Amino acid sequence: MRIGRVRVGGRASTAVLRGRTVHLVRGGPLGRLEPTGETFPLSKVTLLAPIQPGKVVAIGLNYRSHLEARVVPHDEPTHPEPFLKTPSSVIGPGQAIVLPADAGRVDEEGEVVVVIGKRARNLRESEVDAHVLGYTAGNDVSAREWQRADLQWWRAKSSDTFTAVGPWIATDLDPERIPLTVRLNGEVVQQADTSQLIHSIRKCVAFVTSAMTLEPGDLVYTGTPGTTAELHAGDTVQVEVGGVGVLTNPVAAAP
Amino acid sequence: MRIGRVRVGGRASTAVLRGRTVHLVRGGPLGRLEPTGETFPLSKVTLLAPIQPGKVVAIGLNYRSHLEARVVPHDEPTHPEPFLKTPSSVIGPGQAIVLPADAGRVDEEGEVVVVIGKRARNLRESEVDAHVLGYTAGNDVSAREWQRADLQWWRAKSSDTFTAVGPWIATDLDPERIPLTVRLNGEVVQQADTSQLIHSIRKCVAFVTSAMTLEPGDLVYTGTPGTTAELHAGDTVQVEVGGVGVLTNPVAAAP
Repeated sequence: MRIGRVRVGGRASTAVLRGRTVHLVRGGPLGRLEPTGETFPLSKVTLLAPIQPGKVVAIGLNYRSHLEARVVPHDEPTHPEPFLKTPSSVIGPGQAIVLPADAGRVDEEGEVVVVIGKRARNLRESEVDAHVLGYTAGNDVSAREWQRADLQWWRAKSSDTFTAVGPWIATDLDPERIPLTVRLNGEVVQQADTSQLIHSIRKCVAFVTSAMTLEPGDLVYTGTPGTTAELHAGDTVQVEVGGVGVLTNPVAAAP
Repeated sequence: MRIGRVRVGGRASTAVLRGRTVHLVRGGPLGRLEPTGETFPLSKVTLLAPIQPGKVVAIGLNYRSHLEARVVPHDEPTHPEPFLKTPSSVIGPGQAIVLPADAGRVDEEGEVVVVIGKRARNLRESEVDAHVLGYTAGNDVSAREWQRADLQWWRAKSSDTFTAVGPWIATDLDPERIPLTVRLNGEVVQQADTSQLIHSIRKCVAFVTSAMTLEPGDLVYTGTPGTTAELHAGDTVQVEVGGVGVLTNPVAAAP
């Protein structure tokens, strides 16, 4: 199943996608998904962020291909290396990634994103699947100079609009083999599969819950592969996750 | 005025404190604070976290006395050095700070905390006061080994229960002269005044809004002075902020 949020006729609603048809449902994406009976062709709705998380955790340094491509070298981490992003930096499909005037280089980072379905603390890896609602696509937009110069990654990773997510939460994917492709202005710039993660999705989620409770709707970004591409105003960046769809965002200069 | 949240007769409510009398008010602490007419002696209510933030930003390295006391030396920062904490790590007065079993040394960090009242982006320092609801006391609990060894401060600063806040939001303080005292089991371990901050409260809030929108209810922890004290199960830690009151938390081992 694919669950999301759409705007249609000026109204935002949770929806389930079947083929090219959007079925509106009552309540939020974590609810019972009871159909309202209203359906629309996919082409007639505006896609929104599928969920508004209370917390966003992201895993750094989680593909060997990215470690090799990184400007600042880093050994392969022996355990997952989470960091935090703010809920207020979240944007949905179609919303512009805004480049701060004073940030210098800003890169895309396409990622597979876990959407938590049930409250989770101190999980074993074998318990993770039962606490996951599904998977979606994400762009962990990153200001490289701030990432290097600041004490911690706050504005480097959480400037307004730096956490793109969507369009759909796919509930039936195998977390060990989710394909990821990123295109910048139509050209492929990143490509990988979650089988290539240094620390698997189940391991990362379990590790995060060793220190903090994950709540329904929380997001876990699982890492970015290879060489990330610099963004410029006027670009279009697309993160495609197999089974999810394509997260498309334009890039704009700060007003 | 002092605004908070209390539990009385099994029910949580927003409240205003006048002298030693708690006046219940309708709605949340960011609302119109209309009195319900119900009043209780302060001694008869249970104090709760005065607000549930959507975002918690904290400023590192913001007192010279703390820079000098730090195990990992650091130059005086030329601009504020924010980092992020999770809303899910927030606890209120009286709730236990839980020491993770595998964290090693965990310290208290008493701080003056800004409570945002109005949506704020790209503020000048002169505009900050109009966007602040008030000030409260906070404990930015910190696991020192994780802080040194992890790529980023996620569990070091945001393990469950690591963000204590309260008891009251004081709306009439001068941000340039707010006194702060921390006691561990009754003994003073930290003492300072916001006049000693390297980067003033107004500068810190304005700087954060240069990259990210602060929303009503968001918290900004402003930094910790001097030498922080190690916490052990059975301790009681108290952060007193002049005009606010005393934030008291017991310390417990993980179950």
